[in-house]
Parts: sequence; C-alpha cells; structure tokens
Amino acid sequence: MSLPRLSLLARPGGDRRGDRRRGRGDAAARLRPWIYANEIDMPAAKALGAGTQVTVTDAGGAPLGSGFVTPQSLIAVRLYDAAPDRPFDEALLDQRLGQAIALRQRLGLWPQCRIVHAEADGLPALVVDRIGDTAVVQVNGAGLDGLRDAVVAAVAAQSGAACVILRGDETARHREGLPPLPASIAHGSTGGPVTLQENGVTFHADPMAGQKTGWYHDQRDNRIMAGRLARDLEVLDLYCHSGGFALHAAAGGAAAVIGIDSSAPALELARAAAAANGFGDQVSFHRQEAFQALAALAQDGRRFGMVIADPPPFARSRKDVPTAAKAYRKLARLAADRVQPGGFLFIASCSHAVEPDRFAEEVGRGLQLAGRGGRLLQAAGASADHPVHVALPETAYLKSLLFQLD
Amino acid sequence: MSLPRLSLLARPGGDRRGDRRRGRGDAAARLRPWIYANEIDMPAAKALGAGTQVTVTDAGGAPLGSGFVTPQSLIAVRLYDAAPDRPFDEALLDQRLGQAIALRQRLGLWPQCRIVHAEADGLPALVVDRIGDTAVVQVNGAGLDGLRDAVVAAVAAQSGAACVILRGDETARHREGLPPLPASIAHGSTGGPVTLQENGVTFHADPMAGQKTGWYHDQRDNRIMAGRLARDLEVLDLYCHSGGFALHAAAGGAAAVIGIDSSAPALELARAAAAANGFGDQVSFHRQEAFQALAALAQDGRRFGMVIADPPPFARSRKDVPTAAKAYRKLARLAADRVQPGGFLFIASCSHAVEPDRFAEEVGRGLQLAGRGGRLLQAAGASADHPVHVALPETAYLKSLLFQLD
Repeated sequence: MSLPRLSLLARPGGDRRGDRRRGRGDAAARLRPWIYANEIDMPAAKALGAGTQVTVTDAGGAPLGSGFVTPQSLIAVRLYDAAPDRPFDEALLDQRLGQAIALRQRLGLWPQCRIVHAEADGLPALVVDRIGDTAVVQVNGAGLDGLRDAVVAAVAAQSGAACVILRGDETARHREGLPPLPASIAHGSTGGPVTLQENGVTFHADPMAGQKTGWYHDQRDNRIMAGRLARDLEVLDLYCHSGGFALHAAAGGAAAVIGIDSSAPALELARAAAAANGFGDQVSFHRQEAFQALAALAQDGRRFGMVIADPPPFARSRKDVPTAAKAYRKLARLAADRVQPGGFLFIASCSHAVEPDRFAEEVGRGLQLAGRGGRLLQAAGASADHPVHVALPETAYLKSLLFQLD
Repeated sequence: MSLPRLSLLARPGGDRRGDRRRGRGDAAARLRPWIYANEIDMPAAKALGAGTQVTVTDAGGAPLGSGFVTPQSLIAVRLYDAAPDRPFDEALLDQRLGQAIALRQRLGLWPQCRIVHAEADGLPALVVDRIGDTAVVQVNGAGLDGLRDAVVAAVAAQSGAACVILRGDETARHREGLPPLPASIAHGSTGGPVTLQENGVTFHADPMAGQKTGWYHDQRDNRIMAGRLARDLEVLDLYCHSGGFALHAAAGGAAAVIGIDSSAPALELARAAAAANGFGDQVSFHRQEAFQALAALAQDGRRFGMVIADPPPFARSRKDVPTAAKAYRKLARLAADRVQPGGFLFIASCSHAVEPDRFAEEVGRGLQLAGRGGRLLQAAGASADHPVHVALPETAYLKSLLFQLD
C-alpha cells in the first residue's frame, strides 16, 4: 500500500533545521519523529487534511518514514514509523500497545501504571493510564483522534481494564486544532471515583473529572521514597492533590501529616483515602493556597521533619520561564524555611519549559536565600513508565530534588 | 576557644569570585565550603601549615566559618562548619559520623552502604564504605589526615564493623600534598577478600587491594534495576569488575550473562561470587578490553537482550573532556549495536568533568550513529548514600542512562 507523499523543503544546509541547530547530522532526521510546520510544504499538508497518513520524504525524495499530518499544529507531521508507506492500522496499534504493556510488565510496574506515554511508545499524542480497574485514554493529537474507536477497543482488549474512559487534554487538543473531548465512558461502566493500591496504600482517584487522567503515576517512586523517610516525622505535603505523598508518609509511620491543596474535590478523595487506610488520626487535609499556607505556618513558627512541594506547572510555555523560575525559587525558600534541622525537603517541577539545570539552580538559590545548607540525596525524573523518546529529550518534563537540610 | 584567622582577599565586586561566576550572592559565601587558593592570603595560609584549623573571614573581617587549611591544593581551605572558632575535635567527628549513619538508616540502606561521602556529610575529603563486616576509610585531604587515629576509632565504635581498613586515594592525596597511604588494617583483622550481600545476592570484594574502597555502592539502585529487567535475556556486562551487574542479572533470571573486564583480580572475585550464588552455568567472565570485546562480538554478529557499560572515568580532568566525549559516543554506538531490537542499554559515566547534559548528548549521538531509536527509561545519579553538598553541585560525578532500543 502506498501513502500520499509530503516533501521537506530544501534547506541551504541540506539537512533539517531542528537537527542542525542541535548539531546533529542526517541520522537524526531518521530518528526525530516531529516535523515542524516551517520544514514542510504546508499548503500540500493542509490540502491532505488533519490526520491523513503520509510518507514524508526529504527534499531529494528519500523517505524519512510514515506519519500523521497535523497541519493546525506547530508540529506539522508526527512520524510513527521509520518505514515509508506503512499505514497506521489496527495491527500496528495492537503491536505498539502490546510492546508498551510488555515493557511495563518487565519493569515490574504492571498493571497500576502509565501504559502508553505517547511518542516514546510509538503512539503519537496518546496517553493511557491504568487506575484501579479503569483505563483512562487521552487522545491529544489529530492522528489518533480519527482512530479513537480502534484505540479504545485495543486498550479494552489488552489492558484487562473493566472500564475504559476516553478524555482529551483541552490545551493540547486546541493546539492540534481539535475540539474538546469531554470525558466519557467508552467501554464498560464506572460508578465514579475508582480505588487503586500503590505500594500497599489505598487511594481514590476520579478518572472522569480529576486533573489529567485522574492520577499521577509519574511520582510513584518519589512517593515510595517519601514514605521510607517519614517514620516519626511531622510531614507537610503542599499541593497534596488526592493525598499521594501524604498517605505514603502516613503509611511509612509519620507522626503527623498535614496536606494542603486548593482543590476541594481532590481533598475529598484524599480524606476518603485517609479513612480507608485508617490514617484518620494521623493525617489532616486543608483547603488552602500553598504560599498562603506557608506564610501562616511561618507566622506560627511551625517546622516539619519533611516538607513536600509538588506544584502544578508554574510555566505553561517558554515565555513563562522567568516568572516560573522566580516562583520555584520562592517556593524553595519558603518551604526550606519550614524544615527542621536534619529534616527533608522534596520539591518538584512538571513544567516542560523549565529545564532541569534551571530548576536545580533556582531551588539552590532558594535554599541559599533561606540560609539552609545540606545535601542533595536524589535528583530524579518521572518513573520509568513515562519514558522519553530518544530523539525528543525536550519532552522530559518532571524534575524532582530531594534534600536533607542542616 | 579561638582559632587562627585567615582572611579572604578583597575583590572588586566585593564577593567571592566563584560565587559571582555562578551568579550567586553573599548567601552562597556562607554555604560554599571550598575556598580556592586565589581567594585567600596564601602566604598566611602556608605559614599556618597543612591541616591547621582556622576561622576564615571575609575581607571585612566577618566570619565565614571554621575550616582546615590545605595550602598545597587548589582548594586552600575546606570549611567544615559555618560557626567561627569551632575546633574539629572528637565530639564534632562523633556527631557528624552519627548524623551520616542516621541518614543511611533512615534511607533503608544501612549497613551495606557508603557511610560517609566527604563534604556532603560535613567530613571534608573523608570517605567511609561498609563492605561486609569491614569498614573502609579513605582519608584524602590534609585536614582529617592529621586526625586519622580519631577517625578510625570513631568508625570502629559507631559502624559496628569488625574490621577497619585505612586507605587513601593516591591521586587525591597527591593533589593535597600528602604522601600515599598504603592500605592497612587499622582495627580488628581481616583474612583478605570480604563477603557482602546486596539485595539477596552474594558478592566478594577486596577492601585492601581493590579499586577505590573495593566496592561501588553508588551503582546499587542501577544493579537492582538491571536485575529486575533481566529475566530470560542474554546479558553483556562490559567493565564488569567484580560482577555487580552481571550477578544481579543472573539472580533476576537472565538466560546467560557474559562479563568482560581487563582486571584479573576483579574477575577472580566475580567468578568466586558466581560460584557462591550457584550461577556457574549461567554466567561466564572473560578478561578482555571492552572495545576489543565489542569488536569481536560484532564480528560474530552476537546481540544481547541487555548490554551494560559502566566504564572507569574516561576523563580525569577538564582537559580530557573532548577525548572522553568521543569515547562515550563510540561506546554508546558500539554497545547499542550489540542490543537486540526491544533490548536494553545501560550506560554510565563516573567522570566528574563530563557534565550530565554532555554525557546524554554524546550517548544520544552514539545511538543516532548506530541508527537505533528507542526510549530513555531512566536518567539517574549515584544512590542516595552518595549525597551532594548543596553548594558543590560540581561534585556529583555519576550519571547513568537506561534505554530500551527498537
């Protein structure tokens, strides 16, 4: 079978601009799966229409691979295979999903994990999380948007989930020129919030209405680490959401845990989970903005054996970086100030646009401003079920730092 | 008690050059524990003599803290405390060692761990590893060199080790103007190689004659991860040393493991450990240079489900970085070439001078040159018993990348 052709524009240097800028040669062109709007014959792409499967060639006609045209986006084509004229059909979908599942099984993370992490799993702009007995599918790109039914059927067949919920990230879909995709039950049925176990702790999540897919598997390893460190400590969990870190700390034997979040529904899930684990006496959750909570705790002179700060992204795009950098610095300063001598500070950023070095630098400055020395115990990214495509290092988004402060 | 004074030189900007260069302000001067030779009145430092405890002040006379003078080194003073006039005595030594041990206990790594990781644990240029029933002490700086007996006594008392071995890193000691410190039994007795357990696997190490302290605790988490992934795979472990990765892979159910190293004594320890674990049929070790082994395996067309490459440092200093970068790229290219589709590549660098971004970039180029796409599952540093002083980010040395290749 042959797919329509789309050709890269000829460039003075002869190779792709994005790759030249990164000092890479021709080989990169074969591995990098995103083709930008300024690299390609856009009128031809638009004429083919969003979601069309094409074979992309370089300006000389040599094939780079098969991909989805997504002409409303800055990413004009998302390659899904290095072979030309390879249709994205149910067989390919099944194969990619099977490989993604086999990897999570080998990692020992199956089944409560991110099953599909988009490009890194060869499934452009597709996210699938297993949360309890439910699989949550986020279709965020024009290519697989046209294959939603096939995606749901494949996930239902291979994931073993009793229920498949279909959702979309509104911002990401808007960038791709796609309408919002309200959460719906696409397979099976669910009675609202679901229950999952993580490292022996019970949690509740809401895959229909919660943030993103309703659960953040990406911090799993860090939650387990926080639980390991928490014995006998008083713990403050800022941006606690549905209680992931807080309840791991309680399970790890924390003397007391305070969780702070501004979302009432998230706190309801957290409180229900605390009760389900029998942590009612040990843990309390409070609806408050994190910086206001830090100010109030400073006023009271309260310090903690561990402070956790896992905020939502402070930067949504490159232009937000200076403001976000200041916010991370301030958060680090104020959070460090609430840590007892010898206590722990865990701080994270999920802002794509803030690079790891920048985040570490701003956090370091925050510690300096707080006058707190100590030691960095761990710098980590997302858990291994959130892999990064080797030719898209910029898609790594989660950065976390764990300190013991003097 | 009052310590002799040493004053920083006045600088045009008023603050310390190293901190200015990093864009940090006065606060950094209080946290950063290294004072370079070009920052201080060196004739005065030399007159005091190596190992003398001093109070360092800024040019205006305000105290920065207490430290050891090490005037033969580029690092002219190593601060050990932010308080002025604080003698480094047995009480301080006991307190710092106790805090270091308490941290490892809380991390769940005690007792088979790095007990002291130098500056990050408030004990300048001192390294202590527990390996089996033995504690290995490396004294690598002029300050604590004068307190060796007290260090050995404190380690013997607090570590619970039956034997304490005293050693020094010859290169590091030479930089500090110290003579070599041949390995000696400083407390208790040992009959040569010791036995340790890591995650249920038995290993042998030689604390008297092995590289560094005889065992690399820094790769513990990565060895465990390799073991988790290895089931049914054929595994190639390059630079296998005494078999750390190889035997974890065997314990994880690898179909077959080949370990390659150029050190005969290391391979002897590896073979003995393989036998002790009953892995004799599954694992074989070969004395060979790694690049030669890769060439021979390529000649035979052999590929593996997992390739591990954890080489010694390719760069010993900044000037070696360009050569080392090429070597990492080549190692990544040739190692990736030996990985089966769907298999895993683990590659690490322990070169201080090669920064994480540079290492990742060179490895990425190696994969491109090998024409291998895939996904990065994990980017990690050393295990948490090798913390990094918050104001010395440049002392982080270990970088590792774990990929699944298509």
